[in-house]
Amino acid sequence: MDTILRIDVGAKGGPKAVTQPVGPYAGLGGRAMTSTVVCTEVPPDCHPLGPENKLVIAPGLMSGSAASTSGRLSVGCKSPLTGGIKEANSGGTGAQALGRLGYAAVILEGERPKGDDWYKVVISKDGVSIVKDNSLRMLPNYDLVERIKAEHGDQVTVISIGTAGEMRMANSTIAVTDVEMRPTRHAGRGGVGAVMGSKGIKCIVVDPEGTTIRHPANPEAFKAANKAFVEGLKRHGVTGQGLPAYGTNVLTNILCEAGGYPTYNFKEGRFPDADKISGETQAQIEIARGGLATHGCHRGCAIQCSGTFVDKDGNFVTKQPEYETVWAHGGNCGISDLDAIARMDFLDDTYGLDTIEMGVTIGVAMEAGVIPFGDAAGAIRLVQETGQGTPLGRILGAGAAATAKCYGLERAPVVKNQAMPAYDPRAVKGIGVTYATTPMGADHTAGYAVATNILKVGGFVDPLQPGGQAELSRNLQVATAALDATGFCLFVAFAILDQADTFQAMVDTINAMYNLSMTADDVVALGQDILTKERAFNTKAGFGPAQDRLPRYFSRESLPPHNVVFDVPEKELDSVFAF
Amino acid sequence: MDTILRIDVGAKGGPKAVTQPVGPYAGLGGRAMTSTVVCTEVPPDCHPLGPENKLVIAPGLMSGSAASTSGRLSVGCKSPLTGGIKEANSGGTGAQALGRLGYAAVILEGERPKGDDWYKVVISKDGVSIVKDNSLRMLPNYDLVERIKAEHGDQVTVISIGTAGEMRMANSTIAVTDVEMRPTRHAGRGGVGAVMGSKGIKCIVVDPEGTTIRHPANPEAFKAANKAFVEGLKRHGVTGQGLPAYGTNVLTNILCEAGGYPTYNFKEGRFPDADKISGETQAQIEIARGGLATHGCHRGCAIQCSGTFVDKDGNFVTKQPEYETVWAHGGNCGISDLDAIARMDFLDDTYGLDTIEMGVTIGVAMEAGVIPFGDAAGAIRLVQETGQGTPLGRILGAGAAATAKCYGLERAPVVKNQAMPAYDPRAVKGIGVTYATTPMGADHTAGYAVATNILKVGGFVDPLQPGGQAELSRNLQVATAALDATGFCLFVAFAILDQADTFQAMVDTINAMYNLSMTADDVVALGQDILTKERAFNTKAGFGPAQDRLPRYFSRESLPPHNVVFDVPEKELDSVFAF
Repeated sequence: MDTILRIDVGAKGGPKAVTQPVGPYAGLGGRAMTSTVVCTEVPPDCHPLGPENKLVIAPGLMSGSAASTSGRLSVGCKSPLTGGIKEANSGGTGAQALGRLGYAAVILEGERPKGDDWYKVVISKDGVSIVKDNSLRMLPNYDLVERIKAEHGDQVTVISIGTAGEMRMANSTIAVTDVEMRPTRHAGRGGVGAVMGSKGIKCIVVDPEGTTIRHPANPEAFKAANKAFVEGLKRHGVTGQGLPAYGTNVLTNILCEAGGYPTYNFKEGRFPDADKISGETQAQIEIARGGLATHGCHRGCAIQCSGTFVDKDGNFVTKQPEYETVWAHGGNCGISDLDAIARMDFLDDTYGLDTIEMGVTIGVAMEAGVIPFGDAAGAIRLVQETGQGTPLGRILGAGAAATAKCYGLERAPVVKNQAMPAYDPRAVKGIGVTYATTPMGADHTAGYAVATNILKVGGFVDPLQPGGQAELSRNLQVATAALDATGFCLFVAFAILDQADTFQAMVDTINAMYNLSMTADDVVALGQDILTKERAFNTKAGFGPAQDRLPRYFSRESLPPHNVVFDVPEKELDSVFAF
Repeated sequence: MDTILRIDVGAKGGPKAVTQPVGPYAGLGGRAMTSTVVCTEVPPDCHPLGPENKLVIAPGLMSGSAASTSGRLSVGCKSPLTGGIKEANSGGTGAQALGRLGYAAVILEGERPKGDDWYKVVISKDGVSIVKDNSLRMLPNYDLVERIKAEHGDQVTVISIGTAGEMRMANSTIAVTDVEMRPTRHAGRGGVGAVMGSKGIKCIVVDPEGTTIRHPANPEAFKAANKAFVEGLKRHGVTGQGLPAYGTNVLTNILCEAGGYPTYNFKEGRFPDADKISGETQAQIEIARGGLATHGCHRGCAIQCSGTFVDKDGNFVTKQPEYETVWAHGGNCGISDLDAIARMDFLDDTYGLDTIEMGVTIGVAMEAGVIPFGDAAGAIRLVQETGQGTPLGRILGAGAAATAKCYGLERAPVVKNQAMPAYDPRAVKGIGVTYATTPMGADHTAGYAVATNILKVGGFVDPLQPGGQAELSRNLQVATAALDATGFCLFVAFAILDQADTFQAMVDTINAMYNLSMTADDVVALGQDILTKERAFNTKAGFGPAQDRLPRYFSRESLPPHNVVFDVPEKELDSVFAF
């Protein structure tokens, strides 16, 4: 991973690829790479869809190695949704393939020429080719991947945008194919697909044929550390049992029990029909119908939280929908039909729409009276309209905040214009601090305080009390930023927060890979450095304390059943980044 | 004018009116009143459509007196369009009627109860009544006024929202009837109609029957000062000749000549068909058809810049469209059909849409390919869809920035989300500084540097050079803020900038009215005080230097025919409010 691939889409005669040594970006991976490149090369005041923005795609430091569960691919840019810096990361096979090919980053840059030409980039051991192919225009991701398969075989990775990205929607993802070469994994949040669309690149085909796994500097130490790391993941209740058995949707019952499951566009904290869409029910259905409840999104994963959802006849519908997806389209919209939710998950994936943003947007549209709460068929239609770009779809595709703006509503559960995920910040106050303060806009993965507030991982901080939440969020945001640089899946955090030896094993794999002697302090410093850069970018882009807030109604309207409001003092919110 | 009328729309049993002495707000009028109340009573971080926002309606200090051309009515709130403080003011008969009734301000406040009830407020010498009348729901302004006329006669003022305000569109106005009791005058910018809509108030009927003109403290001095003031207005070329003869649309040819007339969504600086829609052509058509080219929007106006536009058969179409309206729907959209433009002006007025925001939004929609440039019938349809709230109309009604967001475009000519008016900031750089820095979002009336850049009023600063523009804008913004407090129409500025004795006469009318001894320095201090408050509100609402900028593409794409970019240094933009 010592090469940067730059694709100048504004070059004369069409997009041109140039490779260069990693140079000043040496030693960076994942979010550390994407955020550093964006902070260094993108003017913070540029328009996210203009020529000055860049799209940076970077495998994690460990991606492509034999380190377990290290296949995360980071995507960075200035976000069309938030207007701030964005890093969104994805599972699937992309990080491993790019890592094996030796690319530390792929950067799409420059001004797309006038017109509506679309390009396919193919990266293999033989180099990089860029082909104009307007027959790909407006292909949904699943159709696109079938086309790529026919041309390039079924052992490649496709990194692509669906119709939403082509239409430069603020809710649009970049899809990454999984081990079955399905476009089920997404750099979902913040509209990164629109930035790829603004560069006129429909897809990047990454062919790892002829490459080998990346070799560690110290093979023996690496092997031992990785073994201890895997053992630690298997030993922990969340990564060893809960996630493999039920996937992330194991959280539905837990959050409802805690009264922090946002229901009916964040008006209540418990969904009466939760049992119909819980992870337990979902796994049962998947197994009964011949789907898969336990499955890995990339090779070498020790957790195996993914799965396959099939219909009553056993036909593939979509990958196992994640908790946040089931929630967004389910309880948040008053919908309890798992088949309808799975259908929407498929539509989101094929159009390239972030499931959280889409579901929250549907909830806002329901609040506006576009369709009633609980209308599953109507909700499916809204997703279809979005992917097709009807006028209503154009509203919805711009996200929850834009939808609220178009319909004149106050009640948009967003921070920095990005929709809140599946945890009500009033009843899970630590995650509220993360929503408010992360440079990413409302994002649970930026500092998953739910772990400590609800799952009692890494200690316990009472979710209903304001005290201690700022510190909790700060520590988790720092740790997460560092983790997002490594390529390790965020889910390893459950084990490493609770088990010191597993944390050490993870650090040891990195040290053995690169012949380093990183300590826990170095990990903290790395996380702080990433966050400091990202915050500086956002400050120059126009963000200040006023943007580090939840919408005011979360402090005014109380959430049943605990009847709590968000009451973490502003002073504490403003202290989160006082490292 | 020593009474404040507060209407608490959240009171038990329906909206309740309370009058109170003007108290701490004594001595304030117009924008000084609205901005002071908003800064004092509205939390800057509130949602513009939420219960914490307030709508403040205030006549100018001189409104209701015999002072000439003093009938401006200010409307203030936190803006649903910009997210910052907003003052929009209007001609028509509202300020005079409220002033005669003794109201220094009407404040709509509190939380509208659930449901969709609409209320009519009636203010007369007998007091205030508030009537629930759901039969008014979704009436366009012209239809509403006919209904009011039938109930209250034709000597009242109606202050109302059309369908756009009811739908809480970010582009929605508050209409004020003129001397013919037509809803042709609007507090247009920033979505003030949506705030009125969010309070459930459809209209305020102001009946001045039984009141008299407000008496000056020093009648003799007042009479002499007012006479000198009127004489000064008549003597100046702009206020005495250009505006009466051709209205504001006299500017079409002037701006095209200067190369600063934004054409095809701000891509060129001259419209080839300008002569078809110029003020000269418009006046000629109006006179030939039996309309009026010279007319006052309120009694006692010495300038008479308004008029009446009729169709080929002499039937009323709309009031004489303003320059900015003709431009927004005309050259900006490549449309040169004055009848189509007049039709859109009427539709804007009756639905309650700001003509500048609407026209710029249509231009953005044309850029997005929704309809082609030059498609007059299509443009009329877009205005209709907006007023009717179709999904496409919901996009357009949210304004130019939201439309660009929904269609994934960079090229939205906005500042703080508010559409730029009819002067390209690259070729009229002084107005560019005003667009960038005024607390109001892109607003030519906040500091009309066009006067000095193009019309050579108040001196001359070369419009194509960056030097001196910050100082020019600063001085004009200060003077305008003060003027907006008085109720005098901004158009008096042409005369008072050029004629020291006319300025003095204006100050003398105020001094004679209130028995004061205000000097020019006091006027400057008043303007600075208003701006300082407004800026402080915006800072708390989350605005900083990054928001005091034009979109980056104005510094990247050059404007023909002069091929200039906006190049006023950021340091100078940031110096505008260094009083």
